[in-house]
Amino acid sequence: MIDETHDPALASWVESANDPASDFPIQNLPFGRFRTSREAPWRIGMAIGDQVLDLQAAALIETQDMNALMSAGPERRRAIRLAASRGLRRGAAQQSRFAAALYPQSKVELGLPCVIGDYTDFYAGIHHATAVGKLMRPDNPLLPNYKWVPIGYHGRASSIVPSGTRFGRPRGQIKPGDAPQPWLAPTRRLDYELELGVFIGTGNALGEAVPIAAAESHVFGLVLLNDWSARDVQAWEYQPLGPFLAKNFATTISPWIVTPEALEPFRAPFERPAGDPPPLPYLDSPENRTRGMFDIALEVWLQTPRMAAPQRLMRSNFRDAYWTIAQLVAHHTVNGCNLQPGDLFGSGTISGPAPDQGGSMLELTAGGKQPLRLSNGETRAFLEDGDTVILRAYCGRQGFRRIGFGDCAGTVLPAREA
Amino acid sequence: MIDETHDPALASWVESANDPASDFPIQNLPFGRFRTSREAPWRIGMAIGDQVLDLQAAALIETQDMNALMSAGPERRRAIRLAASRGLRRGAAQQSRFAAALYPQSKVELGLPCVIGDYTDFYAGIHHATAVGKLMRPDNPLLPNYKWVPIGYHGRASSIVPSGTRFGRPRGQIKPGDAPQPWLAPTRRLDYELELGVFIGTGNALGEAVPIAAAESHVFGLVLLNDWSARDVQAWEYQPLGPFLAKNFATTISPWIVTPEALEPFRAPFERPAGDPPPLPYLDSPENRTRGMFDIALEVWLQTPRMAAPQRLMRSNFRDAYWTIAQLVAHHTVNGCNLQPGDLFGSGTISGPAPDQGGSMLELTAGGKQPLRLSNGETRAFLEDGDTVILRAYCGRQGFRRIGFGDCAGTVLPAREA
Repeated sequence: MIDETHDPALASWVESANDPASDFPIQNLPFGRFRTSREAPWRIGMAIGDQVLDLQAAALIETQDMNALMSAGPERRRAIRLAASRGLRRGAAQQSRFAAALYPQSKVELGLPCVIGDYTDFYAGIHHATAVGKLMRPDNPLLPNYKWVPIGYHGRASSIVPSGTRFGRPRGQIKPGDAPQPWLAPTRRLDYELELGVFIGTGNALGEAVPIAAAESHVFGLVLLNDWSARDVQAWEYQPLGPFLAKNFATTISPWIVTPEALEPFRAPFERPAGDPPPLPYLDSPENRTRGMFDIALEVWLQTPRMAAPQRLMRSNFRDAYWTIAQLVAHHTVNGCNLQPGDLFGSGTISGPAPDQGGSMLELTAGGKQPLRLSNGETRAFLEDGDTVILRAYCGRQGFRRIGFGDCAGTVLPAREA
Repeated sequence: MIDETHDPALASWVESANDPASDFPIQNLPFGRFRTSREAPWRIGMAIGDQVLDLQAAALIETQDMNALMSAGPERRRAIRLAASRGLRRGAAQQSRFAAALYPQSKVELGLPCVIGDYTDFYAGIHHATAVGKLMRPDNPLLPNYKWVPIGYHGRASSIVPSGTRFGRPRGQIKPGDAPQPWLAPTRRLDYELELGVFIGTGNALGEAVPIAAAESHVFGLVLLNDWSARDVQAWEYQPLGPFLAKNFATTISPWIVTPEALEPFRAPFERPAGDPPPLPYLDSPENRTRGMFDIALEVWLQTPRMAAPQRLMRSNFRDAYWTIAQLVAHHTVNGCNLQPGDLFGSGTISGPAPDQGGSMLELTAGGKQPLRLSNGETRAFLEDGDTVILRAYCGRQGFRRIGFGDCAGTVLPAREA
């Protein structure tokens, strides 16, 4: 449904939104939460250029409960987006009312967009799964279930933090292969993972699977997600039940939820390499095949304390994923598991097919053995104290306005005193 | 701190609490939530005999927000318990006021005791880990990290249900070893797991580890937990990131949170077999060594549709666990992970050392190969439709009144139509 809100000729009376470099033109209009001081309550806002539109002050919504808004369904979201689009256009009658509801993004705090109940991390990046598997099993990198099961596991919701949060290098049990026993120490192999996050809007009842044809109607929108990982802790703890303390010290997401409506022009077919098995029927639909994917360019940037500006480390695309969002929703619920408004999925690390397209340091440095040489002459095998990692994403296509996700940034501080 | 509330001579004017077979004598006084109709809000109650005491109606609390009460800390909980104990004793001046705040348990609905944010499942049952490991690796059943790391992983909070909930047999991808490819079907290897659940009271800030000496002050209390598991789904999906759809279709807990105060007389030393490594320093303390464990008898009962009454399948004891609750809290937070009021830990399946002490069917039937013969002549390799599993737990010690946990029951229904 490509409608008037995607018209590339639309311009806003919020002039910063008309800057071709802005992530938030009037064609985007993502949802988030902001507050004007530490003491103020969180309010629901929409990004437009370098401003935030307070949606209740603009009389577009009547709640400050984002989870309630998410649960109201796609029709309600589309109506709010359309009303915002019309009021933000040049010449709109609503300009003075809306203008009174604007805050500069630089003057407010952007928080988590909603209350996150359960967080699930998937593993939909086949190039990541292959590259990581290769480090452990050179001859047989992909496990036999990979092309059948959208592999996922539960993550920690409490330690999800908004972009800009700084955190101390985590401690954990570390046991190199040749050590006689483990010890507790700050991780020496701190890494990032480039992921997209998917927020659930309307939920499903326990026991009721969501069929793939209905799956996207449960999606509220997308963010960027950095699944920070302590590789040495992970290597020692993860058998047999999966990652735990190697991941749950912090997970960073970008503050703006980009809606399926904004992403509509950037849909793409779901395609698999020749010879790969077709998905099982519950993971397949005509719609999923023809337009289940999204063409979203993804980037990782690094800024060390000695750099004047961040340096791009890699690029990939969400199309490099092996499963669509609809497939993740259908799989997650096929056993009756109930999703709730505000639940978050991570896509898994989205690496590209080339060696320089790894979505983590683990991949880019061959497990730390081939440190990266940075543009200022520094090297990195893994992250060092003071390093800032920034994830970025955007969609571009001939005939449409470029839209972006905003930064997903986090900074590593030294480990706290034990 | 064994105080007046444990005096075995104490009797209650609620006569059912004086029945020696009651799980809820005046020495127990666990917390839970109840409602008097589907439309009524949840209220905080305390079990006494076959009754529920409405704590706000009895003027013992001023909130119906259990998570807020949990976050208020151990002193507040102890004060409420002491006041309830005094008011429920024979001859108490408060009798008429409290009596007006009583409801028969059989006449109310018992719900989840609080809002559960994050749910973590541990793997502290070494006999379970060994028995399950033996099915896969007969010569080397325990992985090298087991005696060092309190293994845990994140579970699904949304699908935790209160005792008495019935659920349909879940579907999932199944691929027997000799099949060329997987298919979607109702699980054929549905199992239960006998666990204790640990509710967190006061939380910790992100980045701040909880030292083991302070760990128990973060615990609000214990429940029983059935970690229902679809073994065939688990076998196919769990590599490399752990169990997911094999577990998140339902997890049942008992409705009453038994407090550390009620369990105080049943503490036990934390001991390890000779030759096992001592815990790393962050998992060790004098207090943990001398009184870190709890002596809690655990049982699994099964009632098939053809049985007139449930049959006990096994017995074990929480002392069979390899890690204490304080160790689980200290480990979970050592990397800075933040716990929040209402978070739930599962202990992992607590099997005893003997083969007939397996805490799951998987163990009792050698992976389904040696079906159990039940007392009425039926056999079971795994659970069948209509089966009800009941977990029970109690503490008994010379000189103290026996206390119990109440039933943790769940019933398997046929798979829903796809």
